[in-house]
Amino acid sequence: MTDRLAAETIILGSTVLTSTEPGLPDYPRLRAENSAAGGVAHLLENHAIGIVGGEIAWVVPAAEVSDAEKHSAEVIDGTGQVAIPGLINCHTHSAMTMFRNSAEDVVTSTWFNDHIWPMEVNMTARDVRLGTQLAVAEMLLAGVTTFADHYFEMEQIAAVVEETGARGFLAQTYFSSQGEAGIQAAADFAEKWNGAAGGRVTTAMGPHAPYTVSDADLVTTAGHARRLGIRTHIHTSESPGQTTSSLERRGVTPVQVLHDTGIIETGVLIAHGAGIIEEDLRWLTPYSDRVAVACCDKVYLKHAQSGTTPVRMLHDAGITVGVGTDGPGSHNTLDVLESMRFLSLTEKDRHNDATWLTSQHALDLATRQSAAAIGQSGRLGALLPGYRADIALIDTRGPHMQPMHDLAAALVLSVKSSDVSTVLVDGRVVVRDHRLTTLDVEPAIAELNRRVPQLRDTSHGRRIQDYAP
Amino acid sequence: MTDRLAAETIILGSTVLTSTEPGLPDYPRLRAENSAAGGVAHLLENHAIGIVGGEIAWVVPAAEVSDAEKHSAEVIDGTGQVAIPGLINCHTHSAMTMFRNSAEDVVTSTWFNDHIWPMEVNMTARDVRLGTQLAVAEMLLAGVTTFADHYFEMEQIAAVVEETGARGFLAQTYFSSQGEAGIQAAADFAEKWNGAAGGRVTTAMGPHAPYTVSDADLVTTAGHARRLGIRTHIHTSESPGQTTSSLERRGVTPVQVLHDTGIIETGVLIAHGAGIIEEDLRWLTPYSDRVAVACCDKVYLKHAQSGTTPVRMLHDAGITVGVGTDGPGSHNTLDVLESMRFLSLTEKDRHNDATWLTSQHALDLATRQSAAAIGQSGRLGALLPGYRADIALIDTRGPHMQPMHDLAAALVLSVKSSDVSTVLVDGRVVVRDHRLTTLDVEPAIAELNRRVPQLRDTSHGRRIQDYAP
Repeated sequence: MTDRLAAETIILGSTVLTSTEPGLPDYPRLRAENSAAGGVAHLLENHAIGIVGGEIAWVVPAAEVSDAEKHSAEVIDGTGQVAIPGLINCHTHSAMTMFRNSAEDVVTSTWFNDHIWPMEVNMTARDVRLGTQLAVAEMLLAGVTTFADHYFEMEQIAAVVEETGARGFLAQTYFSSQGEAGIQAAADFAEKWNGAAGGRVTTAMGPHAPYTVSDADLVTTAGHARRLGIRTHIHTSESPGQTTSSLERRGVTPVQVLHDTGIIETGVLIAHGAGIIEEDLRWLTPYSDRVAVACCDKVYLKHAQSGTTPVRMLHDAGITVGVGTDGPGSHNTLDVLESMRFLSLTEKDRHNDATWLTSQHALDLATRQSAAAIGQSGRLGALLPGYRADIALIDTRGPHMQPMHDLAAALVLSVKSSDVSTVLVDGRVVVRDHRLTTLDVEPAIAELNRRVPQLRDTSHGRRIQDYAP
Repeated sequence: MTDRLAAETIILGSTVLTSTEPGLPDYPRLRAENSAAGGVAHLLENHAIGIVGGEIAWVVPAAEVSDAEKHSAEVIDGTGQVAIPGLINCHTHSAMTMFRNSAEDVVTSTWFNDHIWPMEVNMTARDVRLGTQLAVAEMLLAGVTTFADHYFEMEQIAAVVEETGARGFLAQTYFSSQGEAGIQAAADFAEKWNGAAGGRVTTAMGPHAPYTVSDADLVTTAGHARRLGIRTHIHTSESPGQTTSSLERRGVTPVQVLHDTGIIETGVLIAHGAGIIEEDLRWLTPYSDRVAVACCDKVYLKHAQSGTTPVRMLHDAGITVGVGTDGPGSHNTLDVLESMRFLSLTEKDRHNDATWLTSQHALDLATRQSAAAIGQSGRLGALLPGYRADIALIDTRGPHMQPMHDLAAALVLSVKSSDVSTVLVDGRVVVRDHRLTTLDVEPAIAELNRRVPQLRDTSHGRRIQDYAP
């Protein structure tokens, strides 16, 4: 007999990535090769995870689990699998699946002004519903259990989170061009939905960016965030060009705008931050307990914007960095494992340092730090007692993962998201043996494909906003 | 009735990527966005491919295929799939699956001198056999039907090609440190195996690199290549540092060494070429009908070597560029779709030009140009009558590929190699519904995992060669 809680669900016999931690913060001096500079991942072989009430109750060696315990629980066979914390997509516009591969091989200004913002004129609430269904299907199948969404018609997105059993950190987008109504609707959404779906929905304020939302509206935004006890999710310093432009136009960086309007003090998730400069650290570091930057490197390469999130500078300053995909209209997928790989390799390349951004560090970014980025430290991002049971089982037996020399490297540099076999959110199985259990996505795909011609018709000559950062 | 040949196998109802072509060679002036600069891909919806004697006999609209034709052939349902030319991995050391994820987060010199070359002291012919089985399993499942291999114990690799039904362009590696025997064994292999396995094996000479093989031995190599009517596959100018070092040490670039020793004139596949400089074009362009460079960008980012294959310069000079993975000891996978994606995005980033290296161009590199890179123009790399029936069917119905706005972009930027469902080589089905038909890879994986401790034991203090380019 044990004094463990009787588990409702047991994942038996997998390797378990229980947690990661910062590792060696002074890596530039150590620089020992394979030193796991910047992150350490704890991996336990042949263990078992017991789940009670949607929470991880215990993690023990598989051999310690009694037959009685197995008989009274749903047992998920973890043989040949590694259990990792459910992945968190720290920045996306998930419904933009509807625009996947629709605006390719173009620069950012063309992408916005000639493609996406004209097409978004055509978009209906129904399209957002369908696009989000498609997105959640893609994400759950790829082990992404939580997504930080920033988009329009957020009630539709929240409804899909509720229906499918996924988890969302949701912020309704607004521009100042929408007037007061834009902010108010976003605040109303945030107030109504925070903590909904059994706690699987948390919310944030969603001003689009400092170049589309006025300082006055950012001050109002911070007021709502303070009142509701939530953070703000906002595009800021998306590229070096935006920082230069802001300095030229108004003498301050976009990050200083966030500071001066009170956004940083109330807690902020900065999307991209590829234009963050060293001087910005003075505004960010005092609030490192509530500030994070979401990095989506694949998009920065694709749009050739000549700048990526300064992960190393932020790391050295103690600022949290999460892994995101951006919307599938620019990233083409919602695959966080892919995004983590691009981050890892882009960082090595940018710094001409093959020993920087090790695979263990990448796992730390994608788990512990991504949870912190959406304000869920201690609740998500690790497989330890007391954490929510958001878990992705990854099959490591495929030929492309073998033989097994280094599981951390395999998870970052060899894995395919199709290796994700089983996924739980709050202890509920949402993907079993590569199949969704809560969603039939075929009708959404069919309906969206019928919508493609209308979505693409930009003969109206309008756009929802002008891109002139 | 039709006057078509009666097909033995028909792929029915798929979209068919029949061929690609160079597109607009003067893209820098045109620069029209979405102009498919650098490549054009021809995609035919709802078509059928008829195969006779391992060769593509016809490609016609599916509706034109009669019931009688269907009844007398094996029909493969192409619904929801796109048929693309079997992918070609233009540079790898496939058996290095045995070292996958074994030497991570290190610079190139450490990778060679402290990890790979000491571990290769331990390697047996049996290990190469097993490692290649694992590699071919991974590649076939990912739609890679042909691989250009450069390694030791090449008879073992050729035997796996023969057994599994894959296709190989095989070159046995040698260093001058092995003396005469090294070259001779490589030449003997090339002579014995060229055209073997029903033509699925073609061969090349495989000197390791200009920094490990003497000029005299390169001259001898060119002599063998001329005598046998084959090309040479060699690592050259792998990084900008190697070019600088060569200029300092001997006043000529590595590419000029290839020229001066006769290697270029007899035809050459240059692995990497990331250090190729503009002055090298004078040696390469006169032989553009027989010269190619294999690009493996993921590895250059990972090893932070501060240089990538100059794809744009080579494109403008009319030099063929193929897509490769390098060995899985550095690339961590043998996934050519992944490699193509890294190439596409790395190129956009390197040139700060989102309109360069479009998805259609990437497909041209991965099909037509990769076939040319291994001397198989007109035989591989397109799905046209007269070409060998090397075909990968990719399922486009997954949520991560939908809805379908642009199939070329989806194939380059959204696809997962696990979408490859069915694969044919020479008309023979080698993967059916995601399962290998010619190889049981489980025993190889198990045996290799048992070998890991011995492979990693470098207490002998030796290495097969010193890395000092």
